[in-house]
This record gives sequence, structure tokens and C-alpha cells, in this order.
Amino acid sequence: MISTSAVDTYIEQNSRRFVEELKELCSFPSISNHGLDAVKPARDWLAQSLGRFTDRVETLEAGGMPALYAEVRGTGKRKILLYQHYDVQPVDPVDLWSSPPFEPNEKDGRIVARGVADDKADVMARIHALETLKSLGEVPVTLRFLIEGEEEIGSKSFEKIAHDHADKLRADGCLWESGTSFDDAGRPTLQFGCRGLLYVTLRVRLLDFDQHSGFASIYPSAAMYMIGALASLRDQDMNIKMEGFYDRAIKPTEADRRMMAKIDPEVDKRRKLVGFEKLVRDPKPEQVIEQMLFLPTCNVAGIASGYQGPGSKTVLPAEAMAKLDFRLVPDQDPNEVLAQLRKHLDKNGFEKVEILAGEGEKPARSDVDSAIAKTVIESVRELHGEPVLWPFMPATGPMHPVVADLGVPTVLPVGVGRPDNRIHAPNENIHAADYVDTIRLMCRIWQRFGEG
Amino acid sequence: MISTSAVDTYIEQNSRRFVEELKELCSFPSISNHGLDAVKPARDWLAQSLGRFTDRVETLEAGGMPALYAEVRGTGKRKILLYQHYDVQPVDPVDLWSSPPFEPNEKDGRIVARGVADDKADVMARIHALETLKSLGEVPVTLRFLIEGEEEIGSKSFEKIAHDHADKLRADGCLWESGTSFDDAGRPTLQFGCRGLLYVTLRVRLLDFDQHSGFASIYPSAAMYMIGALASLRDQDMNIKMEGFYDRAIKPTEADRRMMAKIDPEVDKRRKLVGFEKLVRDPKPEQVIEQMLFLPTCNVAGIASGYQGPGSKTVLPAEAMAKLDFRLVPDQDPNEVLAQLRKHLDKNGFEKVEILAGEGEKPARSDVDSAIAKTVIESVRELHGEPVLWPFMPATGPMHPVVADLGVPTVLPVGVGRPDNRIHAPNENIHAADYVDTIRLMCRIWQRFGEG
Repeated sequence: MISTSAVDTYIEQNSRRFVEELKELCSFPSISNHGLDAVKPARDWLAQSLGRFTDRVETLEAGGMPALYAEVRGTGKRKILLYQHYDVQPVDPVDLWSSPPFEPNEKDGRIVARGVADDKADVMARIHALETLKSLGEVPVTLRFLIEGEEEIGSKSFEKIAHDHADKLRADGCLWESGTSFDDAGRPTLQFGCRGLLYVTLRVRLLDFDQHSGFASIYPSAAMYMIGALASLRDQDMNIKMEGFYDRAIKPTEADRRMMAKIDPEVDKRRKLVGFEKLVRDPKPEQVIEQMLFLPTCNVAGIASGYQGPGSKTVLPAEAMAKLDFRLVPDQDPNEVLAQLRKHLDKNGFEKVEILAGEGEKPARSDVDSAIAKTVIESVRELHGEPVLWPFMPATGPMHPVVADLGVPTVLPVGVGRPDNRIHAPNENIHAADYVDTIRLMCRIWQRFGEG
Repeated sequence: MISTSAVDTYIEQNSRRFVEELKELCSFPSISNHGLDAVKPARDWLAQSLGRFTDRVETLEAGGMPALYAEVRGTGKRKILLYQHYDVQPVDPVDLWSSPPFEPNEKDGRIVARGVADDKADVMARIHALETLKSLGEVPVTLRFLIEGEEEIGSKSFEKIAHDHADKLRADGCLWESGTSFDDAGRPTLQFGCRGLLYVTLRVRLLDFDQHSGFASIYPSAAMYMIGALASLRDQDMNIKMEGFYDRAIKPTEADRRMMAKIDPEVDKRRKLVGFEKLVRDPKPEQVIEQMLFLPTCNVAGIASGYQGPGSKTVLPAEAMAKLDFRLVPDQDPNEVLAQLRKHLDKNGFEKVEILAGEGEKPARSDVDSAIAKTVIESVRELHGEPVLWPFMPATGPMHPVVADLGVPTVLPVGVGRPDNRIHAPNENIHAADYVDTIRLMCRIWQRFGEG
């Protein structure tokens, strides 16, 4: 086997080029929300990068943004599925960025660019880890790269891709894109699942055109109708009023509680960074993590009606729009929640609110004691110290088809994630040093899993 | 006295030029919401127009958009104050206009332009009426033109202007800008007052920057906080929950009810035009007008938070904004309502909602039996048939300083207003024929009042 010191030396010697290649990937504005043409250049560039190590780079399609697939045969028997995505979130409000989001900017050891943390660093780190082991000898495990193109818009066709290509995706373990990675005290963190998501756009129109607001005494208000509908869904404490909403939401087990007790809720540091005064439900410190994971949400991601410009305009708006996202806990099902939402609106007098589009992802949990989990825990312990284990992450990924349908044990390993990465927000950034460590960890995991 | 037929002939012979001059005034984009520079060209043009009949055109200022003032001495003893405004509403959404809002477009007998109905037709009709009488002989009544520049943004400095220049504005009667003018059956309408207004911008910020919506389980939502605050203010039936809000709102007298019984509520025609399914509170036809006038409102003129673009963005917004307008019934006071709003927000757990800006106008009622009222009623009866009388109009104007502080009996006469004028909305328009009739009516009123 290639020695750890040889691996570390190769990575060290090539680290500058590795960072530059990461920045090159981040210069592609692969915003999946902007459609097929927006994501293609990044995908083509990645197909070339992977093509250096295998002649089997394929495109898998199922009606949405195409995914890239490539297998690299290893010397050992075991197979690892590597899940990443090459698409990124939109950039607005763009005027809050300190540098253009697709002109990666390095300053004080940080790289600022849309997508650099979520998750182009994972994409490139795994390609650079592959280059490292290939350059020094052989890869001891078969690697199955799956880089999808619509994670940020709900991975609509990923379930179908996973089902259609089950033989290509099955493996002894799956390394998902990395999650939070480091807490604010710098402790490495690992996660073994994710929450689900339902995202909908709501609209209501009660008049044919906007009216002079003097008529508000007699003409109905679309804005108030939407506000009433949203207010009926939940209160300020995130108690969601939809019938049956909590029925399938699991409670933490004793093992989950023991795991979560070791997680630092970092309330003061979060407060300083994020600027909240009180958390939702004002939990005790020891309840924060349980709430973060096990409390499903109904979030107003956007609302718009009437006049939004400077000064005053006295108008009764004809129409109102809102965007809602629900973060779901295992074993809630987005299709069921969509039906509950429709039923709730109808039952509470808001039948005129249309649900224009709904997209969903199911939540998923994987076993903390699987072989791949053990390998990752040991490798992280060796490189970064004792990891903090999370039953699942508060965010969402399309893990359900892999974890539940294909039955592949899955881990979100340590990557570049820090609490101040500003993912999905202006000035998304990572530490360049974390990027290099991500490559080192990946080599260790593959080598250790290949031996097993 | 100049004969009615001489007046009508002069107006008829000059009607094409009169319409062209109205269109010229409408080509100035005098949106007061856009600031001082936006309104100046229209004001300068009007000062020149008035300067043809008096060498005493003045500018009255009190910290806001300047008003124009001009006195034209008449042969009789009586004085009439003429109130108009030269500013207009914003034009958005501009893509819904069939022609550019400041390129007046004539088609099928209609003129389409921002401000043509509200109220540049009144401004020009009174100048053209003055030209008509001056050309044919003498004006029998002293005319005091007051053309203000910020009616559409709440006439912030008008009260001070009225108080500072009380001697210039006092008169035996005041003709306000015209109101609805014609109901859908074509019957002329007169109004003797207006509702008041409080307009505020609300803002709440609970986080320093937008967060990934996965954190909605623990970080508070500015969007929901604003939605909760707005929902607490009123229900879908316009029952307003602020303590003391209705205390000063007058109820209709028996005389008011007799007046309103003669007004056609035009529910079916309104439904066809505006497209509502049900009116607020689902009133019986005979209750509609009373509700339109005597039910004060709390209207969401605008709301904005988070992502409003196409597709999905999973964000927990740091901030939310709303614009509210309250239409007030005599004798409600906007300053009191502003204090009630602050108190309501604080008492209901919404103390973090800031009230960024507040502007108000007091409601006002004038006597239906005054000399100027009788003159207008008789003149309208002669030209258009029996007028329908409204105690006051559902909309707002800065009448209070004139009616209540200076004690000038005031009427909103018949002008160009029709139910399909689309004031404050895209494609604002008038009938050119109504414009010519407005000039004729004005000459009759002045002649009749001068005789009295």
C-alpha cells in the first residue's frame, strides 16, 4: 500500500495547483435554477477531468439536469459510491457580495465563490484524491462517481436515475457530499442522514387588476388572504397546524440522545455570527441540537404582493405569491405533506390559494455502525481527532434513493464545512487549507476501506 | 352676463386645442414619489398657462413639493377656492400599459395617460374654463387656484401651506378636484368630503443575514414575524383589532342613510369590471355604499421578504418589509391611529416591527346645504340631470385644512371620473368628451355662484 507520508507529500507538492483547479471549477456559473444551458459548461469540464482516469465517463438522464457517472476500478473487492453535485444556488442579492460570485477570490487564506463550499470543494477534492493515489500506484477500492446537476433545485430526477441505474450505483458504502464538517470549536463532525424537503410556490388572485386602496372596504385583499393562509399554517414557535403533519415524524432514540449530548450547541457563537436575539422556542442549551434535527419546519422562503418600491403607493393588490419550504424528519413523506397542505388550506377557508409547483425529497437515515461508517470515523479520528457524530444533518439531500431504495450505508464525511461558510448566502467561502485536508482525508478513507 | 350658448360655442370651437393642451400636460412625468426634480417641469408649464390670465402666479412652499397659487379677480364679491394637484402616481407595473404612460394616446374617444383622470383633466379644465369666460367677457367670481405637488404622496406640507397662507385660501366656497363624477349608469355624482389616510412602512430584521432554510428549526423567521403581525391587525372581513381604532369613527346619520339609499351600488357591474367573487363581509346590496364609506380599512399595499424569483431558493430571510394604508372615517385621526398601531404591535408580541415612516391625512366632511353645494347641485342638474349625492368619497384628499381649519364649504364636483378610469393602475384613461363637459360645467358653476 502507498504510505501515508507519500500521499501527504504528493498532496502538499501539488496543493497550489489543486486550489487553482478548484477555483477554475468555481468560475462556472452552474446555477441549476437557470436551466439546462447554465449547468452544461461545468459538467463538460468535469467530464474531461474525470476522463483522465477512466474511459467510462457517462451522462445519466431522467428528464432533468443530466448527472455525470464514472467508474474507476480498484484493486480490492469493495466498492464506494461517491455522491456530489456540480450545480449551485442562485447568487442574489448579488450586491451584497464583496467580489463577483463567479470570479473566485482568494484573500487571507479563504476562497470566496458561489458553490465553493456547497459543494464544488467535494467534487474537486475527490478528483484530486483519485489523481494522488493513481499517481503513486493503485486505488485499492472501486470508485463510482455520481455527480448530479440539480441538487439545489430538489434533485427532481435523481430518484429515477438511481432506480434506472441501480447496478451502477450499488456499493458497499457511500460517501455523500460532506456536511457541516467542523463545529465552531474546530471539532470534526460526521452525519449519517438528512432531512427531507417539500418546496411549493403558492399564489392567490382575487381581482382582475390592482385597485385604488380606497376600495379596500369592499374588495377582498389577496395580500391579506395569503397572509391569513400562511399565519394559519404555523405560529412563531414553529408549531405546524396541518392535520397529521407530525404523525410520521420519528422521535430521537436513547442512542440518538447520547450522540446529540456530545454535540456542542454553540449557542453563543451562533448568536454572534447570525445575530438572532432568541432561538425559536427559546430552548435550553441541551435541547438545541434535538430541536435543530427533530423539529420539522414550515418556512416562508419568500413572499411578495403589491408595491415594494420606495415611498408610498396606495394600492389594493390583485394578487399575492409565497414560496414555502418544509424540512421533513424521517419518516415524513413530502407527497403526504403536499396533500396535507392542500387539505389544510381548503379546510381553513383558503381554497383560493393555488399550489403552483411542488417538489420534494424524502428524509433518510443510515446506520452509524456500518463498515463505511467505522472506516470514516477511524480515518477522521486519525487526521482531525475524535469526531462528533450527528444522527442526520438539518439540511436536505437526495439520499433516500441510495440509503433506503438501494440499501447502501451512507456517511457524510468531513470536508471544508465551517459555521461561517455562508452557504446559500452572499460571500460563500472556504479555507484553502481545509480543501487540502479534504483531499488527504479522502485518500485515507479509500485506502482503509480497500484494506477491509 | 355671458350667455350659456356663447360659452358652449366657444368651448366647442376650441375643444380640439383644449384636448391637445391636456395631453401636453399629461406628457410630463410628474411622479411626486420620484422627488422634487420629477415634478418641476409640469409645475413650470402650468405657471406659464396661468400666467396668461394673471400676473400673480406664486409658488407656496412648506418643506415638500411646491404648490402653485394664482388669484384671478372677478367682478362679483364672492370668492371660490379651486383645489387641484399636478403630481401623479407611479406607473409600475409598466409592462401592463398598452402605450407608454407619459405619451398620451387617443383611441376610440379615450385618452390613455398616467394622471389624465387623477387629476390633470381637472387642472386643465379649470384653466380652459377661465380662458373661455375671459375671452367672452369677465369672470363674475374671484378665483383662487391652488395646485399642489404632492397629493399622491400624502400632501405632507399642505396643512402647513394652508395655515401659513390662510388669507389667500379663504373663500366662500371651494371646488375640490372632481371625484367619481359618473356612476356606471352614467348618473352624475357629487361628494362633500373624503376619508383620511395613514400610510406606514413596516420593517423587521431578526438575523444579520439570510440563512439556509435548514436552520428554520432554531432561527427565528422575519417573514413569519411580519405575517403574524399583519394577521393580528385584522381578519379577512376587515375587522381591525387595534384597541380604540373605531372609537372616533362616526356612524351615518339618518340624512346620510337617505342620501346613500339613492346611490346605486352597481355590484354586478363592479364584479364584471374588477373580477371579485365576493365583497368583503358579503353585504346586502343596500349595505354596500355604507360599507364603502363608513368602514375604515387596514390595507396591505405591499409586502416583501426572501426569494421572489422563478423556481426555488431555500432561504430563511433575515428581514421582511410591508406597506400598510389605513383609510379613516371622520373623525378618526391618523396620529392617533399611528399610536394605536405601535401599541398594538407592542402588546401582541411584535415589538420588533419597526414603523419606518408614517404619513397621514385627516378625514373631512362638508355641509351638503351650503351655498356652493347648492350652486353645484343646480348646475349639474342643468347639464347632466339629477345628481347622486355622496356624504363623502371613499378615497382621500387633503381637505381637512380647508374644510375644518379654514372653514370653507367644499364640494367635489363632476369631472371626468368614470368607474373604468383605472386611476392608480396601468392604462389610466378618460373619455375626451367628458373633458369638454367638465369645462362647460365649470363655467356654469362660476357664473351661477357669481350671481348669488
